Amino acid sequence: MKDYSGRLKSETDAVNTIVAEYLPKPEGFQKKLIEAADYSVQVGGKRLRPMILLESYRLCGGSHEEICYPFMAALECIHSYSLVHDDLPAMDNDMYRRGNLTTHAKFGEDFGILAGDALLNFAFELILKAVSEAGNEEDRGRMSRAGRVIAEKSGIFGMAGGQSLDVELTGKPVSAQQLDFIFRLKTGALLEAAFAAGAILAGADDAVTETLQNAGLLVGMAFQIRDDILDVTGNEKTLGKPVLSDEKNDKTTYVTLYGLDKAQKDVEAYSDEAESRIRSCGDNDFLLWLVERLVSRNY
Amino acid sequence: MKDYSGRLKSETDAVNTIVAEYLPKPEGFQKKLIEAADYSVQVGGKRLRPMILLESYRLCGGSHEEICYPFMAALECIHSYSLVHDDLPAMDNDMYRRGNLTTHAKFGEDFGILAGDALLNFAFELILKAVSEAGNEEDRGRMSRAGRVIAEKSGIFGMAGGQSLDVELTGKPVSAQQLDFIFRLKTGALLEAAFAAGAILAGADDAVTETLQNAGLLVGMAFQIRDDILDVTGNEKTLGKPVLSDEKNDKTTYVTLYGLDKAQKDVEAYSDEAESRIRSCGDNDFLLWLVERLVSRNY
Repeated sequence: MKDYSGRLKSETDAVNTIVAEYLPKPEGFQKKLIEAADYSVQVGGKRLRPMILLESYRLCGGSHEEICYPFMAALECIHSYSLVHDDLPAMDNDMYRRGNLTTHAKFGEDFGILAGDALLNFAFELILKAVSEAGNEEDRGRMSRAGRVIAEKSGIFGMAGGQSLDVELTGKPVSAQQLDFIFRLKTGALLEAAFAAGAILAGADDAVTETLQNAGLLVGMAFQIRDDILDVTGNEKTLGKPVLSDEKNDKTTYVTLYGLDKAQKDVEAYSDEAESRIRSCGDNDFLLWLVERLVSRNY
Repeated sequence: MKDYSGRLKSETDAVNTIVAEYLPKPEGFQKKLIEAADYSVQVGGKRLRPMILLESYRLCGGSHEEICYPFMAALECIHSYSLVHDDLPAMDNDMYRRGNLTTHAKFGEDFGILAGDALLNFAFELILKAVSEAGNEEDRGRMSRAGRVIAEKSGIFGMAGGQSLDVELTGKPVSAQQLDFIFRLKTGALLEAAFAAGAILAGADDAVTETLQNAGLLVGMAFQIRDDILDVTGNEKTLGKPVLSDEKNDKTTYVTLYGLDKAQKDVEAYSDEAESRIRSCGDNDFLLWLVERLVSRNY
């Protein structure tokens, strides 16, 4: 497969610009809150979810990409909020993420909580502003459905639900069924939303939307298993966090449950299946490369 | 003015039923999360915001009330989340609210954070589900605009922004301008949203919507000043929380800034002005009674 590293760089920059444009300026009496929210997004990550949303839109033949922008920014706000709250003292109690201070470590625990809340809320502010200002009824319908899938996949029956079981079982034995649930909801759900929202915004039919949404779930599974593998085989420098940090809490992982061999085979099986579903919906080599890179990442 | 206590009771019951119907059943791997979210809403309060939304809708001549229900439930979820996160150890560190254990005191700090997140997210799940399933384009447009005002008034430029300044200034001197900002955003904004959303859903024009939204802000100001007065003159039994709890943190209040006399006069001025604006938009004696009762509450 062609190497898309250059395109990844330019698309990441483009997504960064889009996301940054939506965030409010740090000023007024809410300055510290906005700074904390802004910081959380800045250090948050690789912009994977917004990029997937856009590429899913392109795959489905969407032709006015601006419609995606508020949804891309919203997804990144939701992803960022989840990291900020996961890092809180009452949760994982992490002071660093990818070499940067976590939001609560930098701004205080109270502003860790508030910045996360503000980002989650802001995501839906962006979405509902976009829906209410839609240029025509067809777009308004698509945007409301895309917003709905994002809301559902980030909530109790998505990311937040997965996170809650993960937190509840910290330090306790985890069954295969429970780990599967955590992977699907905590990691898979928001990737499902990214694929599905892009497809819906492009006007894809229900079958294509469902196939791509399912590809997102499979990518999430592969990604999360790979994450557990890296906790055993990675090194601190490439990961930016202490290796075996999960093990230190006696945490059940995919590797402790199934062994390294099966874990590695399953990453391939899940990602192969995801790629096959993506291919069945259209041509987008960059998206396939992104998925491939994501599940084989050692950075 | 007529005594609407009986109607208040039946309307509160009706709102409780509506809100409860939208909340998911506590089952599955997210059971604890749903229980904590559910508990937070159960002990949360007097259902004032959803009731105001519905009464604003009626005032504006709305005739299919079911359109309001998901928005009423959403407002109550947002209000509840804000209480749960305000009570957290890193914020106000309150173990009791209205005589009940706070969510984090009952379910643990981690589930206090998670339940708040889940409720905030769920509010927008309800709204976006409603928008995406609207029966016709007129309703979809109204619902998206009502959802937008709720999102904006609960976020950085609304409740969350007000809360952030309140938290930032805890234990520090607060200027009159800062206190005004906190009152307007922390308390006023969500009441603005309740009035405005009801009007928008009923198809009120921009002028009426704005007048009612502004009435909500004035009610919020009166309510918050009254709250500060009660912290001085109330008693623990009628309030359900320790009297002078705000004072203990050397907190600047409306009473410490302006004195009890002016505070009491301003409550009346704000509520009179609010009532006059409500009257200018239509007839709804129950809504006027609600506002009156709210700002003269000694319960």
